[in-house]
Amino acid sequence: MTIKKPCVLVIHGPNLNLLGKREPNIYGKLTLDEINANILDKANKLGIIVDFIQSNHEGSIVDALQEAEGQYKGIIINAAAFTHYSIAIRDAIAAITVPAIEVHLSNIYKRESFRHHSIISSVVYGQISGFGGSSYLLALEAVADIISNES
Amino acid sequence: MTIKKPCVLVIHGPNLNLLGKREPNIYGKLTLDEINANILDKANKLGIIVDFIQSNHEGSIVDALQEAEGQYKGIIINAAAFTHYSIAIRDAIAAITVPAIEVHLSNIYKRESFRHHSIISSVVYGQISGFGGSSYLLALEAVADIISNES
Amino acid sequence: MTIKKPCVLVIHGPNLNLLGKREPNIYGKLTLDEINANILDKANKLGIIVDFIQSNHEGSIVDALQEAEGQYKGIIINAAAFTHYSIAIRDAIAAITVPAIEVHLSNIYKRESFRHHSIISSVVYGQISGFGGSSYLLALEAVADIISNES
Amino acid sequence: MTIKKPCVLVIHGPNLNLLGKREPNIYGKLTLDEINANILDKANKLGIIVDFIQSNHEGSIVDALQEAEGQYKGIIINAAAFTHYSIAIRDAIAAITVPAIEVHLSNIYKRESFRHHSIISSVVYGQISGFGGSSYLLALEAVADIISNES
Amino acid sequence: MTIKKPCVLVIHGPNLNLLGKREPNIYGKLTLDEINANILDKANKLGIIVDFIQSNHEGSIVDALQEAEGQYKGIIINAAAFTHYSIAIRDAIAAITVPAIEVHLSNIYKRESFRHHSIISSVVYGQISGFGGSSYLLALEAVADIISNES
Amino acid sequence: MTIKKPCVLVIHGPNLNLLGKREPNIYGKLTLDEINANILDKANKLGIIVDFIQSNHEGSIVDALQEAEGQYKGIIINAAAFTHYSIAIRDAIAAITVPAIEVHLSNIYKRESFRHHSIISSVVYGQISGFGGSSYLLALEAVADIISNES
Amino acid sequence: MTIKKPCVLVIHGPNLNLLGKREPNIYGKLTLDEINANILDKANKLGIIVDFIQSNHEGSIVDALQEAEGQYKGIIINAAAFTHYSIAIRDAIAAITVPAIEVHLSNIYKRESFRHHSIISSVVYGQISGFGGSSYLLALEAVADIISNES
Amino acid sequence: MTIKKPCVLVIHGPNLNLLGKREPNIYGKLTLDEINANILDKANKLGIIVDFIQSNHEGSIVDALQEAEGQYKGIIINAAAFTHYSIAIRDAIAAITVPAIEVHLSNIYKRESFRHHSIISSVVYGQISGFGGSSYLLALEAVADIISNES
Amino acid sequence: MTIKKPCVLVIHGPNLNLLGKREPNIYGKLTLDEINANILDKANKLGIIVDFIQSNHEGSIVDALQEAEGQYKGIIINAAAFTHYSIAIRDAIAAITVPAIEVHLSNIYKRESFRHHSIISSVVYGQISGFGGSSYLLALEAVADIISNES
Amino acid sequence: MTIKKPCVLVIHGPNLNLLGKREPNIYGKLTLDEINANILDKANKLGIIVDFIQSNHEGSIVDALQEAEGQYKGIIINAAAFTHYSIAIRDAIAAITVPAIEVHLSNIYKRESFRHHSIISSVVYGQISGFGGSSYLLALEAVADIISNES
Amino acid sequence: MTIKKPCVLVIHGPNLNLLGKREPNIYGKLTLDEINANILDKANKLGIIVDFIQSNHEGSIVDALQEAEGQYKGIIINAAAFTHYSIAIRDAIAAITVPAIEVHLSNIYKRESFRHHSIISSVVYGQISGFGGSSYLLALEAVADIISNES
Amino acid sequence: MTIKKPCVLVIHGPNLNLLGKREPNIYGKLTLDEINANILDKANKLGIIVDFIQSNHEGSIVDALQEAEGQYKGIIINAAAFTHYSIAIRDAIAAITVPAIEVHLSNIYKRESFRHHSIISSVVYGQISGFGGSSYLLALEAVADIISNES
Repeated sequence: MTIKKPCVLVIHGPNLNLLGKREPNIYGKLTLDEINANILDKANKLGIIVDFIQSNHEGSIVDALQEAEGQYKGIIINAAAFTHYSIAIRDAIAAITVPAIEVHLSNIYKRESFRHHSIISSVVYGQISGFGGSSYLLALEAVADIISNES
Repeated sequence: MTIKKPCVLVIHGPNLNLLGKREPNIYGKLTLDEINANILDKANKLGIIVDFIQSNHEGSIVDALQEAEGQYKGIIINAAAFTHYSIAIRDAIAAITVPAIEVHLSNIYKRESFRHHSIISSVVYGQISGFGGSSYLLALEAVADIISNES
Repeated sequence: MTIKKPCVLVIHGPNLNLLGKREPNIYGKLTLDEINANILDKANKLGIIVDFIQSNHEGSIVDALQEAEGQYKGIIINAAAFTHYSIAIRDAIAAITVPAIEVHLSNIYKRESFRHHSIISSVVYGQISGFGGSSYLLALEAVADIISNES
Repeated sequence: MTIKKPCVLVIHGPNLNLLGKREPNIYGKLTLDEINANILDKANKLGIIVDFIQSNHEGSIVDALQEAEGQYKGIIINAAAFTHYSIAIRDAIAAITVPAIEVHLSNIYKRESFRHHSIISSVVYGQISGFGGSSYLLALEAVADIISNES
Repeated sequence: MTIKKPCVLVIHGPNLNLLGKREPNIYGKLTLDEINANILDKANKLGIIVDFIQSNHEGSIVDALQEAEGQYKGIIINAAAFTHYSIAIRDAIAAITVPAIEVHLSNIYKRESFRHHSIISSVVYGQISGFGGSSYLLALEAVADIISNES
Repeated sequence: MTIKKPCVLVIHGPNLNLLGKREPNIYGKLTLDEINANILDKANKLGIIVDFIQSNHEGSIVDALQEAEGQYKGIIINAAAFTHYSIAIRDAIAAITVPAIEVHLSNIYKRESFRHHSIISSVVYGQISGFGGSSYLLALEAVADIISNES
Repeated sequence: MTIKKPCVLVIHGPNLNLLGKREPNIYGKLTLDEINANILDKANKLGIIVDFIQSNHEGSIVDALQEAEGQYKGIIINAAAFTHYSIAIRDAIAAITVPAIEVHLSNIYKRESFRHHSIISSVVYGQISGFGGSSYLLALEAVADIISNES
Repeated sequence: MTIKKPCVLVIHGPNLNLLGKREPNIYGKLTLDEINANILDKANKLGIIVDFIQSNHEGSIVDALQEAEGQYKGIIINAAAFTHYSIAIRDAIAAITVPAIEVHLSNIYKRESFRHHSIISSVVYGQISGFGGSSYLLALEAVADIISNES
Repeated sequence: MTIKKPCVLVIHGPNLNLLGKREPNIYGKLTLDEINANILDKANKLGIIVDFIQSNHEGSIVDALQEAEGQYKGIIINAAAFTHYSIAIRDAIAAITVPAIEVHLSNIYKRESFRHHSIISSVVYGQISGFGGSSYLLALEAVADIISNES
Repeated sequence: MTIKKPCVLVIHGPNLNLLGKREPNIYGKLTLDEINANILDKANKLGIIVDFIQSNHEGSIVDALQEAEGQYKGIIINAAAFTHYSIAIRDAIAAITVPAIEVHLSNIYKRESFRHHSIISSVVYGQISGFGGSSYLLALEAVADIISNES
Repeated sequence: MTIKKPCVLVIHGPNLNLLGKREPNIYGKLTLDEINANILDKANKLGIIVDFIQSNHEGSIVDALQEAEGQYKGIIINAAAFTHYSIAIRDAIAAITVPAIEVHLSNIYKRESFRHHSIISSVVYGQISGFGGSSYLLALEAVADIISNES
Repeated sequence: MTIKKPCVLVIHGPNLNLLGKREPNIYGKLTLDEINANILDKANKLGIIVDFIQSNHEGSIVDALQEAEGQYKGIIINAAAFTHYSIAIRDAIAAITVPAIEVHLSNIYKRESFRHHSIISSVVYGQISGFGGSSYLLALEAVADIISNES
């Protein structure tokens, strides 16, 4: 008898596809592909299957969140710019029952004041920010922990 | 000689496709399909043809509003999360001459404070909120009234 | 055996007795008597008995709301200026169990900013605004709907 | 042939009946009767008939303003405390066509900050404040001037 | 030789006549009559005569405050909703020389934010809030203390 | 023996030299010369000597206010744009002992919100606004009254 | 068989040890020792044992609150300056089950605006302020009342 | 040997496709096609190749900005409604190295207050607004200037 | 027959005489004389006569604006520090009929937040900012365009 | 040759000693000792030595932070109530070179609004919140990662 | 060989010429001449040459600051009313390289709230306020210290 | 007969013990010991005895301020982080009669905005900030001046 590995969805918000090229002093030198590779690596060790989405379109992220229901055991979301104004994404996270973890590469409290407020913080499970690409890895560990507690 | 029945466009904003499943204590138990069926029912009685759009994409709602010009006699819009920040939707409503009515299922003033402000309120014809699925039916009646006054 | 028709109380706030004379570009040309006649007309069709109150005195409106308990199945209230500051009226609405619907003739969001905030919105059942005298008629329909759902 | 003298209504708001007794360091030593006597004196010289109202009831002042329409050529109003929150009085002033002049005994800008904002200022003809009982006399002169310009 | 007992006026603001019926989870189960009976009881023990007023009309409370001058040695006022906006009541309290004590049944700081600010606090002698009907009894004791210190 | 007539200084702030030409819908059709002629006329009747200053330079108005000390019995100042930000003019008014009256041609509360706040209001004797050129004449009368009370 | 008397802890916040010496026009002439003596007096009459703490150290007050759990039936706290910013004290009050009553000697609403907000108000049982040293005595009575209702 | 002409991307935001039809009193009578024709004309004179994008979809504009990197020497962007809230567009402009110029047809400071703030202003090279269709032409000239300075 | 060339007034506000010396990292290395020479150059090409004013005195700029009426076909104004608080300059621009264009050397939205708000923006024809000395040249072109459209 | 294990300091702020007893619906059922045991467990696996401090005294936490310099390779701090107002703790974190990670048991964005702002966020390395006791474990992992990257 | 003594410029802002006469309870009894004499006295002892300027004209102070460049080793400025709004003076201080010290006679934090904010504070070297005429003397000493450190 | 030298207490707030090590670009390179040595030096010259306290504990500073009464002729306090939130320290300064001078090493107006507001400014004698270690020396001179004026 085989036990199905739990699936986790990683959502990268707008402009994160430029990682490594865009303002590396803020966002680090890793490209999105390299970050994703690190995530896969970690996921392997944790026995988790990971899918990735990157989109510059708010609506596509809302769609993805809705479709995650029943498909995934956890969501890791770096909503990037949408963090600060997309009530649509907030409502989608609140509408589904999959636990979502908010991550940020940079410490958003060291940046422009309009980045200090997250519209999605009050509907996610928890937040991890400031650890560069490792923010995702810590979130993956947190998800693994949540999944193992639930099962 | 046949008189053409007036057409009305009903626009459902982001996450409304989850109705009935999402937080039923706030939004009620009716699914979007059931609400639409009720609207069609009422429309039949009022001699009105109704088309429906639901989208999680702000741009698609802007497109739909623009294309409504000349096609519809009235618009009923529940912009959901977009109500509170989409100036693009506001501008589209202001740019067309079709009267639009803003509806909400819940009484938005009983909810989080960021939902108390509607960016589209000052460009719509009127607002109806708090009556659950019936908010749409009352809006349809209002539209019928506006159309009959114009003709 | 006769079934008693349900009674609904319509409350008109301060200065609404001037309707038709006062700033008709904002409030329309209908006098309060004409609006009340239209309401009675609609009430007849819906099998509802309607009583009317108009007062420029906040305290009298609070009294009327208190006395409505047990006497009426629904309240339609256009609190006019009191909408924006009368916590006494708000508390009276909250204190009774009769559902109250807030109506406004004009779209208050197209007017002075101090009219954008309603102190009673969070304690009423729902809001209807912007449809001129028809705001009351739609509210009556909504009340009829609420009553029929309850019985 | 006799020419009818123009009539002016002077409205004293809440607690002004205590003038002379209440905080004389702020409001001066004149009683309301003495102020009214001075107003009558001045009115005689200007050929104006003056009526007086004092009320602690917002609704009564709204009633008086409404009834002034067609009866008076001008209104002088010291709304006292109501100056700062009575939108009902504001709406009544805006609803009638009689020009109203806002007066204050004290310079309200030297007092508590909540007295710095007048809700009626934007609907009155002009403001006169800070001259004690003479504020009314100056207002009477201003009204006489407005009346003579209109005829 | 008989010594006249001191008189104290207890003022109950709008909607307090509904006590015991209205939202008992907030305001407790005691009716206003039961609270008044408890106050009389306590007054008897303290050798104080108590009169009561309850009104939903701001103007009537202003009238009562003005008339208290010279008649009462102390005032206990639960201005209820008026606490938060009636500058007229505030001015009346400030205008008379009878010490007034502000009471509230509930701890207003545990409720809606618009109830956190009292417009009358800065002109009363002291505040007592949160002890249910006992708030009045403690206030009576405080008044007795003030009276005995003065005589 | 001759009694010296009291002198009053009238200060016109920036851009008032354009009166009659500049935005007549706001400021009226009278030129500054015509207004000054009316003031002189009124002054003659009141037995007052009037001097005039108009300047677009804040510093010149401060100088004039300082030099008024000991020379004038009263000051009438329409600080125009400076009303809203010149703390230097405010300090000059506060520093001298000559009573100053603030006048405005238009009702500033009907205009842009940045014109609703006057930085000098709390240091002047009183305010008169909204009566067009007559604002100055009423102020002159007020000054005459103050002077006669002092002597 | 002896019944153990209930114990109440009275906490005096920073600078209250200076009472009687510090700004007596605000805080009165009684020293802290005299106030405590009065409290003991009253406690004796009520059959209550009282302990006292005064500290200028926020942490010591937090410690005391924590240790009160299980030892005391009620707490009377005048947090003085800490009232306005010590979230640590607030959290301690919220964390324990002993009812706490907030007292102030002066009417804090007559003082600087930063003293108008209490960070602990929403977690205490009730507030008593403005009665000088008697604020504590009234609080003691309130505590006695709460204890007798519980037992 | 031929020198490649520099390419410039012109981005038109939401609802600009309605130009000429939508509120011509605000936006002028020129259609978007006519404006684009004028831009091409000017571009020809300046030896610049211009591409155009119009979209009602925020994500599409973000995509276009990202793809402009390496393809264009300059960007002219009228983000329309997105100007005021799209942090995603802001981040895209900041992420690429192509200089972007913000243009507006109307003087946005003469319009609703929510249009006074641009979220992209601090990341663009410069702003040009208020000149109708000519705003684009001036921007093109500015771009030509920047390009010639760089080469 | 000769056609008179149109005249344009260029106004440089306070501290702009220090250009080239003052904080060149913000304002560039060009001196004011060099910028003026470039403007003259461009004016020659456009067939426009240009006059220049630089002043550190607000009043002198108001005077210059007033005197421009009838003398100039357009005004280019860099009000520098006055941009942010001089209502007097704003009123002067509004009072005259000559179109004025607001220019800034730097992108003011990249600087201190108090520089983000321009008090004159809502009364000028348009704004151009961020292009260094070229901001003036673009403004000159815009003026030429406005003049040619008017004639 | 032995390699010295890296040391990490875990700082628990005020009232965290009550964990497990205090409001378990917010903070969970684990006691502080149990959490510390879990941390030690994890530390063992990561080859890290951990020391613990818990204090209700702000000054003691500042002292501990200062003394950590040179003694520890990383700090994990749950400043609890101090998170929101202790600039002294913020300055201590900024003054030392040891990287500090901010953790919270609960998702502070789901709680009272005064808990949404952290005064220390902009000086720590990163934040982890909302995962209950696991927040500390994730932080420990993050610290281990930082240490291994540095060496 | 003689060493040239360093020169320092002392700038007195608007209304300071009235010192000793104007509100002596706030500004003290010393006249400006007496203060200047004290400054000269101190300067003599420190081997410094001092020049003085007093002006009610903002522009003149800007001019003086600009001309100080290269002439003076230090500036002591009491900008008086201009402290709170003159961005022109702020820009002038920032534009020159001479260190400027901000002084105030009174403790501005004990006065009206609009005096609590200084627009020049962030560009001066340091501030000294509250010591009456001695504020200048301390500033002179500070300047002497700065000069001696530089040479 | 010997005259006792006056004593002055110098209070250093939290983290100032790290001076010279902590962020020397902001606070300078001098250690606290070196600064104290300089103060002693200066005190010797002025004939003043100086005592020093440094504490990271708010309560200890309150204690020290209270104990200063009667022991010291003046206090020099750099409250560091406590400057911005410790109402307890503010109240202690207000409660004692010893004059206190607020000093800061850095110009706090060039730093984070939360450092721009001092809660103690309105109760100290004067402020000196921005001169590094010399701020203390200037304050000592100021104290010497105050003491000599008093005796």
